Amino acid sequence: MDRQCAVASLTAFQFQIDRQCSQTRGRACSFHTPHGIVETPRFMPVGTLATVKTVTPAQLRDTGAQMVLSNTYHLHLQPGEEIVAKAGGLHRFMNWSGPMLTDSGGFQVFSLSELRKIEERGVTFRSPRDGAVIEFTPERSIRIQNALGADVIMAFDECPPYPAERKDVEAAVARTYRWLERCINAHERPQDQALFGIVQGGVYLDLRQQAARDLVQLDLPGYAIGGVSVGEPSEEIHRIVEATAPLLPAHKPRYLMGVGTYREMVQAIAAGIDLFDCVIPTRLARHGAALVKGDRWNLKNAQFREDFQPLDEDCNCYCCQNFSRAYLNHLIRSREILGYTLLSIHNITELVRFTTRIREAILSDRFVEEFGHWLQPSAVPVSP
Amino acid sequence: MDRQCAVASLTAFQFQIDRQCSQTRGRACSFHTPHGIVETPRFMPVGTLATVKTVTPAQLRDTGAQMVLSNTYHLHLQPGEEIVAKAGGLHRFMNWSGPMLTDSGGFQVFSLSELRKIEERGVTFRSPRDGAVIEFTPERSIRIQNALGADVIMAFDECPPYPAERKDVEAAVARTYRWLERCINAHERPQDQALFGIVQGGVYLDLRQQAARDLVQLDLPGYAIGGVSVGEPSEEIHRIVEATAPLLPAHKPRYLMGVGTYREMVQAIAAGIDLFDCVIPTRLARHGAALVKGDRWNLKNAQFREDFQPLDEDCNCYCCQNFSRAYLNHLIRSREILGYTLLSIHNITELVRFTTRIREAILSDRFVEEFGHWLQPSAVPVSP
Repeated sequence: MDRQCAVASLTAFQFQIDRQCSQTRGRACSFHTPHGIVETPRFMPVGTLATVKTVTPAQLRDTGAQMVLSNTYHLHLQPGEEIVAKAGGLHRFMNWSGPMLTDSGGFQVFSLSELRKIEERGVTFRSPRDGAVIEFTPERSIRIQNALGADVIMAFDECPPYPAERKDVEAAVARTYRWLERCINAHERPQDQALFGIVQGGVYLDLRQQAARDLVQLDLPGYAIGGVSVGEPSEEIHRIVEATAPLLPAHKPRYLMGVGTYREMVQAIAAGIDLFDCVIPTRLARHGAALVKGDRWNLKNAQFREDFQPLDEDCNCYCCQNFSRAYLNHLIRSREILGYTLLSIHNITELVRFTTRIREAILSDRFVEEFGHWLQPSAVPVSP
Repeated sequence: MDRQCAVASLTAFQFQIDRQCSQTRGRACSFHTPHGIVETPRFMPVGTLATVKTVTPAQLRDTGAQMVLSNTYHLHLQPGEEIVAKAGGLHRFMNWSGPMLTDSGGFQVFSLSELRKIEERGVTFRSPRDGAVIEFTPERSIRIQNALGADVIMAFDECPPYPAERKDVEAAVARTYRWLERCINAHERPQDQALFGIVQGGVYLDLRQQAARDLVQLDLPGYAIGGVSVGEPSEEIHRIVEATAPLLPAHKPRYLMGVGTYREMVQAIAAGIDLFDCVIPTRLARHGAALVKGDRWNLKNAQFREDFQPLDEDCNCYCCQNFSRAYLNHLIRSREILGYTLLSIHNITELVRFTTRIREAILSDRFVEEFGHWLQPSAVPVSP
């Protein structure tokens, strides 16, 4: 990185703590990226294939979303990163002018693909599209992410399954560190793409903590906690985050990957997490479910057939401002796509608003007062 | 109908001829309805189940659409007209504040349902939903349409298949007339719902013409030509419209049902037709096809993979203003719903604009000059 790039690097990415909660590790921060500011804590919707399913970028903007995710694994398979790069990068390809983040493909390679072979060099697997053998290495993941051009890119990591034996997790943590060093070396756009490291370690807190300490030595522009929400009990997520987040530097963004449920977000925010992503708002929508004030409703239920109220009378989203529960019930029963679109708009709005309200509470130092009830152990099964 | 209603009837529906083409029977008109003006000639998109598939009412408004269709048969089955009525009518239920039209269910009963029995009283068929026996009579169709509350409602007619023997078509025409008289008697909202009669007669021009003359005697607020686009060659549509439209009163709206292809619309407009409807823009979109300047493109084709131009550089729709052909190709190949939404927005915009430009041409008496090439017999298979 030459001197000019070093200066650009300093200006393109800035992270400031706007306010620290006086009773928890929670904080409200501003993360400056080349495509705008992300005000945290904040939920980030997922646009796997360069589209947040069923919504347009204009509708997505209206949800209050700031940073949007997309998936390296999926985009490599279709349409391929060369086409996205020729289009001018992911932002222009999908017409999202705000901040973006791409994952490394690691999680998908380990969870979705078949016939994978894991070696020190990388992972080979069969394309679900045409059966061709594909190799993902740390270098290749970064090269793809450099071509896609998101503001934040993620290190290629080995994500062990749950449950996994301690020795296997230990090996995955060690390999993830070696792969991270290769990612850093391969990264060709540090001036306008911030590479985040990922803390692995499964449910073994000492492994998590050692991994965090090792990663911090590399002075990366941000850190994520990965390998959670992979099937372990919800309490494990809380234990992992509680033990790990405080070890990550306070002046860098902290991102808890794959988590987007109400209680888990509040608990993680109290432990110092800034960013979240999850497919839950759009996935629930495709199943006809809405997130309303902390609950999960199945709009297909007969109780909504003649319910002419808006989904959430306090919600300012396009769905709640213009349509009734009865109409949503009709659309979902009819399998009309508009139903999935309207519920996606609402569900994303709901989760972004939930984290925005937490931010506002932290800014006025009322986080525990307003959201403390979420910090109690859950007496009922975790939802949304 | 008391005197107050009679006055309302006069004011709620007005039809004026803005300009008559000097070389054809084409005309530009303004059809005033309780929910606004329909400027003709104009294409009307179809919202079968109280939603134009994959687009929101806000997106639909931006296409330039004025009057929107919905289907009595489908809405009776789901959610049922009682729920729509309780919601405050179809406009409020689906949040479309502009003019609306419902068909009578006749076409669907004859073309979609199984185990139907046709008698003088009406038609019985099995619900495709739960197998229950349902009876549609002229009275019931009108009662349902009165409950739905569209601005224009259609007479319940017998729509013979194609091909059909002359004696069968003759019987269907006679029954359609008797059913129309029953529809008129059953209609309880003539003050704010205009009942249109439907000319049947298959490909037998003398039957069509006699049916038209008989219907005109009933002095209805508008007339439709039905039973076309049911499988007959495209030239038959032209023959039927040419022979029938001139017999319908000039000072009433004329609607050609189920037709929405470029050439057929231009030819019908030249014969004096004002309104068209067709599912083609949304159906093509669901198959990944776009209507571009009179042609039909399959966006899935490999030629679009690296084509970073807008779909139609002269189009002002949300799709063409914000996305490339390469992105649409990617969405369609990925079966992403956003692809169908964007193509639906474009295709509806395209057909509404096509008829709007014809209107503008007629207003400046340049219809034949600008659209005359569509009036020549087609040398290639008919498309949009």
